[in-house]
Amino acid sequence: MWRDFNLAQKHCTPCEIGTAPLDHADVLRFLESLALSWQVVNDAIISHEFRFPSYMEAMLFVNDVAAIAEEEGHHPDLAIRFNRVVVELTTHSIHGLSDNDFILARKIELSY
Amino acid sequence: MWRDFNLAQKHCTPCEIGTAPLDHADVLRFLESLALSWQVVNDAIISHEFRFPSYMEAMLFVNDVAAIAEEEGHHPDLAIRFNRVVVELTTHSIHGLSDNDFILARKIELSY
Repeated sequence: MWRDFNLAQKHCTPCEIGTAPLDHADVLRFLESLALSWQVVNDAIISHEFRFPSYMEAMLFVNDVAAIAEEEGHHPDLAIRFNRVVVELTTHSIHGLSDNDFILARKIELSY
Repeated sequence: MWRDFNLAQKHCTPCEIGTAPLDHADVLRFLESLALSWQVVNDAIISHEFRFPSYMEAMLFVNDVAAIAEEEGHHPDLAIRFNRVVVELTTHSIHGLSDNDFILARKIELSY
């Protein structure tokens, strides 16, 4: 199985107009490059729920994610429910998943 | 119309077992004590979407809300979508709304 072990060293780049979203096979390959189990919806969204011992630890994670998001210019949706944070990634401009989503997912994993 | 202009000076207190949630009339009265327009779901949840000029300003607000939540021991659900933050309040222990939700809502409004 092909795996990209360098995702965390890459950076998000703006998707050019007309870029096709990743297809099902690509999505599966990229998922293999992540350490955690991410849920996939219609090959267009990936999400993962991160759990923490406390609310404030969850908020520290949220701030880490926000810093990564700003640095990469790619911003996941975040849902905070006490000590749980759901991170949801998609690339709106291409109505699907791009390399950027998996680069960000890997960086977020590493901040956990 | 009865209004509570001192909500922001009050503090959340744990609901005793068996406390009834606020009824429809109480919910309407408390809504009048808030400055912003909050949505109500089944008299059990109130929510409001706060918008910001940028992602980082939304995150500053999220951190302010988290600090208030920790101080009051009452934690709203938060949904962050780029520059929009939805704050959702309910009192899980009584399966409905309590004074605490409106005290917190008012404090959150004032931090906006």
